[in-house]
Amino acid sequence: MKKVVVIGATGTLGRAITTELKLRHEVIEVGTTRGAHRVDSTNPESIEQLFREIGKVDAIVTATGKVHFGPLPDMTVEQFWVGLRDKLMGQINVVLLGQQYLNDGGSFTLTSGIVGDEPIREGANATTVNMALEGFVRGSAIELPRGIRINLVSPTVLEESMDAYAPYFRGFEPVSAARAALAYSRSVEGAQTGRVYRVGY
Amino acid sequence: MKKVVVIGATGTLGRAITTELKLRHEVIEVGTTRGAHRVDSTNPESIEQLFREIGKVDAIVTATGKVHFGPLPDMTVEQFWVGLRDKLMGQINVVLLGQQYLNDGGSFTLTSGIVGDEPIREGANATTVNMALEGFVRGSAIELPRGIRINLVSPTVLEESMDAYAPYFRGFEPVSAARAALAYSRSVEGAQTGRVYRVGY
Repeated sequence: MKKVVVIGATGTLGRAITTELKLRHEVIEVGTTRGAHRVDSTNPESIEQLFREIGKVDAIVTATGKVHFGPLPDMTVEQFWVGLRDKLMGQINVVLLGQQYLNDGGSFTLTSGIVGDEPIREGANATTVNMALEGFVRGSAIELPRGIRINLVSPTVLEESMDAYAPYFRGFEPVSAARAALAYSRSVEGAQTGRVYRVGY
Repeated sequence: MKKVVVIGATGTLGRAITTELKLRHEVIEVGTTRGAHRVDSTNPESIEQLFREIGKVDAIVTATGKVHFGPLPDMTVEQFWVGLRDKLMGQINVVLLGQQYLNDGGSFTLTSGIVGDEPIREGANATTVNMALEGFVRGSAIELPRGIRINLVSPTVLEESMDAYAPYFRGFEPVSAARAALAYSRSVEGAQTGRVYRVGY
C-alpha cells in the first residue's frame, strides 16, 4: 500500500484514477477548485503549500491542465501560452517542486493525450503541449535521483467526454475513463521509467 | 529563386544555412543582436516590426533559441521557463505572426536538435522544448492555409560546437554545420510538410 497524491482528482479522468488506485492504496485527492485539498498547479507557491501540508508520499499523479483549441491562422501568441502555462508547466511545476517530497523509489505519473500523436484540426496547441510532456518525461527519467521514476499516460478521447468533443474526434474510438485509469496503476506499481503508456490507440 | 528570411543568421548554424540557401535564393539575414536586420523573436512586437520592414516572402527559416542546461534535482521553475520562452515560443511566435507574410505555397522551417530524441544529463529542458517543437510542426502542418508548409530540422551536435559541448555529448558523432544546413534546402525547396529532418543520427 502506497501513499499516492492525485492532483486533478475531481475531473473525469481524475475520479477514475482515484477509484482505481484506492483499490490498493491510500489516495490523497487534490482538486483545483473543489475538495479538501486544493492546488493551483500553475502557481509554485500553491504547490509548495500543498506538499508542506501532506508531507512525503510514494507517488504523485497529475491529471490536470487546459490547452487552447482554435484555428491556427487566427491563433494569438497569448492563446498559445494557455497550454504552456496550464497543462505543460502545471504538471512540470509539480515535478520540479514535488521531487523532494517523494520517498526513495517513488514515482511521478503525468497525463498527455492522443492529440500529441494524432493531430486534429484546431489542436496545434494541444499537440505541442502533449509532445512537450513526452519530452519532459524522456529527459527527466534519466536524471531523477533516489530511484524515482516518471511516466506519462496518453489516453485517446474519453467516452465520458464525447458529448463535448465528438466533432473534433470523428472516427476515433473512445475509451472509458476507467480503462484509461488502469495505465496509472501500471505506472505507480510497475518498475518502468521514461515510458509513455498510450491507451486506446 | 525564392525570397527567404533566415532568423538567427549570425549563429554557427545560421551562417551555414545562409551560405547553403544563397547558392540559389535571395536570403534576408536576420540576427538577434547583430546584422542589418534584427529581431527579438521572444517579443511579438519585434517580429511584427521585422515583417513590416521586409514584406512578403516565400520561406521563413528560424535557427535561434536558448534552453537551460542544468541538473534536474536543482532546476527551478524559472530556469525551466527559459527554454519555453526562448527556443520554443521564439520560433512559434514567428509562425503565428509570420504566416500572413508568407506567399501562397511558402514554407516555415524551424530548428530543434538531437536532445529531443536522445536525452542527455542536465538536458530535461532541451528535450522538452525540442519535442514541443516537433509537436507544433505536426499539429500546425495540417492547418496552415494556402499551401503553406512547415518542417523541423533536428541536427545532432555540430562539429563547430564540440569545444563547448563535448562533455555532454560523449560518443555522439558530430556533423558539420554545412551538412546540417542541407536539410534546410530540403525543407525550403521540397514538397513535404509536417516532417522532422533528422541530421546525423
